[in-house]
Amino acid sequence: MAAKLVGNAVVGQSGGPTAVINQSLVGVILEAQKAGHIQELLGARHGVRGIVNDQYYKLKAAPKELLERIALTPSSALGSTRDKPDADYCKKILENFKKNNVRYFFYIGGNDSADTARIVNDMAKDDGYELRAYHIPKTIDNDLRVHDHTPGYGSAAKFVSSAFIGDNYDNRSLPGIKINVVMGRHAGWLTAASVLARKYENDGPHLVYVPEVPVTEEKLLADVDRVYSKLGRCIIAASEGISLPEKNAKGHYITWAEKAAQNIEHDSHGNIQLSGSGALGDCISQLITQKLPNPGGKKLRVRADTLGYLQRSFPGYISKIDAAEAREVGKRAVKYSAKAGTEGSSVYMYRVPGQDYEINYAITPIANVARETKDLPADWIVDGCDISEKYLQYAKPIVGDQPQVGILDELK
Amino acid sequence: MAAKLVGNAVVGQSGGPTAVINQSLVGVILEAQKAGHIQELLGARHGVRGIVNDQYYKLKAAPKELLERIALTPSSALGSTRDKPDADYCKKILENFKKNNVRYFFYIGGNDSADTARIVNDMAKDDGYELRAYHIPKTIDNDLRVHDHTPGYGSAAKFVSSAFIGDNYDNRSLPGIKINVVMGRHAGWLTAASVLARKYENDGPHLVYVPEVPVTEEKLLADVDRVYSKLGRCIIAASEGISLPEKNAKGHYITWAEKAAQNIEHDSHGNIQLSGSGALGDCISQLITQKLPNPGGKKLRVRADTLGYLQRSFPGYISKIDAAEAREVGKRAVKYSAKAGTEGSSVYMYRVPGQDYEINYAITPIANVARETKDLPADWIVDGCDISEKYLQYAKPIVGDQPQVGILDELK
Repeated sequence: MAAKLVGNAVVGQSGGPTAVINQSLVGVILEAQKAGHIQELLGARHGVRGIVNDQYYKLKAAPKELLERIALTPSSALGSTRDKPDADYCKKILENFKKNNVRYFFYIGGNDSADTARIVNDMAKDDGYELRAYHIPKTIDNDLRVHDHTPGYGSAAKFVSSAFIGDNYDNRSLPGIKINVVMGRHAGWLTAASVLARKYENDGPHLVYVPEVPVTEEKLLADVDRVYSKLGRCIIAASEGISLPEKNAKGHYITWAEKAAQNIEHDSHGNIQLSGSGALGDCISQLITQKLPNPGGKKLRVRADTLGYLQRSFPGYISKIDAAEAREVGKRAVKYSAKAGTEGSSVYMYRVPGQDYEINYAITPIANVARETKDLPADWIVDGCDISEKYLQYAKPIVGDQPQVGILDELK
Repeated sequence: MAAKLVGNAVVGQSGGPTAVINQSLVGVILEAQKAGHIQELLGARHGVRGIVNDQYYKLKAAPKELLERIALTPSSALGSTRDKPDADYCKKILENFKKNNVRYFFYIGGNDSADTARIVNDMAKDDGYELRAYHIPKTIDNDLRVHDHTPGYGSAAKFVSSAFIGDNYDNRSLPGIKINVVMGRHAGWLTAASVLARKYENDGPHLVYVPEVPVTEEKLLADVDRVYSKLGRCIIAASEGISLPEKNAKGHYITWAEKAAQNIEHDSHGNIQLSGSGALGDCISQLITQKLPNPGGKKLRVRADTLGYLQRSFPGYISKIDAAEAREVGKRAVKYSAKAGTEGSSVYMYRVPGQDYEINYAITPIANVARETKDLPADWIVDGCDISEKYLQYAKPIVGDQPQVGILDELK
């Protein structure tokens, strides 16, 4: 039997924030504080960047009172990074781990971060240095393969659905056309959460557009015209990454935002920056104002909001189940790490179909999770402009309690 | 002694929504249900428009369970309107009131709505028709004169401050320059709420711009440069109505948004529509990217969000004190209406300086409230880019509980 691997551990956070990413961090810390195989727990400042710069918080003795407040704080308490390490960068990480006798590495992030954990894990193995690296999932995008859903998604979905609940009553009160642009470059998971806002007949969103299904200007205009003619109002949910059915030179669909924005920026992963700009919302708004017939010559009242960073970092309004699950995946990673052979894996959640919602935890090799993303199932997208009932069954338990509301039409 | 005035009452809601405007409505309904002087309570659909079209909900027997859900629902449950009645319109209102034996009129809204209640009240008096009209305040803008603050402001301010709390941790985690555009055309009350987000040293917002003090591009750039050089990051709060120190042909300061937006729309009160568009945020963002020196040739990470409609209609995240006060002003209006001589007034809240926060209620002639708006006190604005401690003393009790947070730097 192999001797127990005892040494230090590093925990890091990477990528965009979520409202519960610190729950996972606190899960790691609390479990590591109890763990016999972990001596010091080092918190890498700004993810891999902190590792190569040897900048760490010492966390083994962090007080519980502080940790519980940090768990409620959105965004990465350790600091985050957009660095995506190449082989040379990973070599430096490994050097630092050796120097600090780091034998455990817990990396909390999306699929880019998963890939980093995988590379470092494999590199250590090739190098004969005993290291166990784990990926702890987080992303509001909910686009990790294998995972039923990802920590952070439930809270972001709750925020988005509540935004649409508010807009439903706003739009009933002062009718018009309202467009909300929701985060999601490649997958429509977060935009789909808008349909959780529906309670009464004719509640919005009346049209939902996601990146999975390209949409032409003509189709969008026809959809809006149909809804507006019937209801005299229309609420639209659009992912920031919606595309036209035309491809660019690289063979990718051209996004509406690419067409709309004058200045396109790229982040360091090569992703196009779509958030934080009203360009897409303004573009759809303008299209509708200019091209739709305005009955009776009355100018259409069209407004667009881009929900922006609030979706990923609004404090005090989280999904309780999301917070609990986020903490649990952190704890589980540390528990798994006590056992040889579990390294190089991602902690994932699954549920048993046909049963009441109950989350089970397991691990899968990181390669199953990293790089490629998971789309909304094709049969959950209806006519290219709506989301089916199946999504509601999937999402309701993750999002949890919704605000209580009422309308006077209940009086009858 | 005059005979008791017994008849029907009309309640209406007008203008933009708030998260608690239905608390005031429910306050009116619950009190009217008990009141001997009110026979039927008619809820005007879409404000004055419902009155002239004779479209009413009957509310005297509305069940409490429904009312309590409606109280939690953002936006106007009766429907709202942007109609600002002229003399002819008001004449039609009065005709409808006579037809329906309406002797009491409660109008929930901002200063435009206050003015409508005043005109109808005066017109009835001139006409010898006994009517008692009251203005019940609501506006997230908090810009009504006489009123210490207005129902709706506390909840909007809580939302805005929480948005900035989230951004503080987001910005610590992934440093850069972040601009949030906050509602407020003429007054900076809601933008000022951003400073409630500060807890730790170097917390943002680091710069706050309000409409009360015009700001040049040069001053804004110098401010950002100073903060960014010191902290390596910068969070900016800007009112949608911030202006340049140059005047247009009408003698008004030219707003940044006017300069930025290609298409300026006006609502039916002649107000420029600034919300729902990312133009101002994108304009500030672009200005900083293009004009600020980027140390080390590294491109500045600049992002802008426009908080948009969420500020006025996000459900499930209200200020408790705001909700309670909103209900109370509604109740008080009905109580006052039992007494002759109280008509033509606005229910306002005041506090006694130097004492612990406790709100008192009184009435003031509507003319003291309507039309003109109330700015932030000049001495609460510091160097044209910050808000003083005096605001915190004023606002904290109105906003109430803030989310718990923590940072790892507390470890020392």
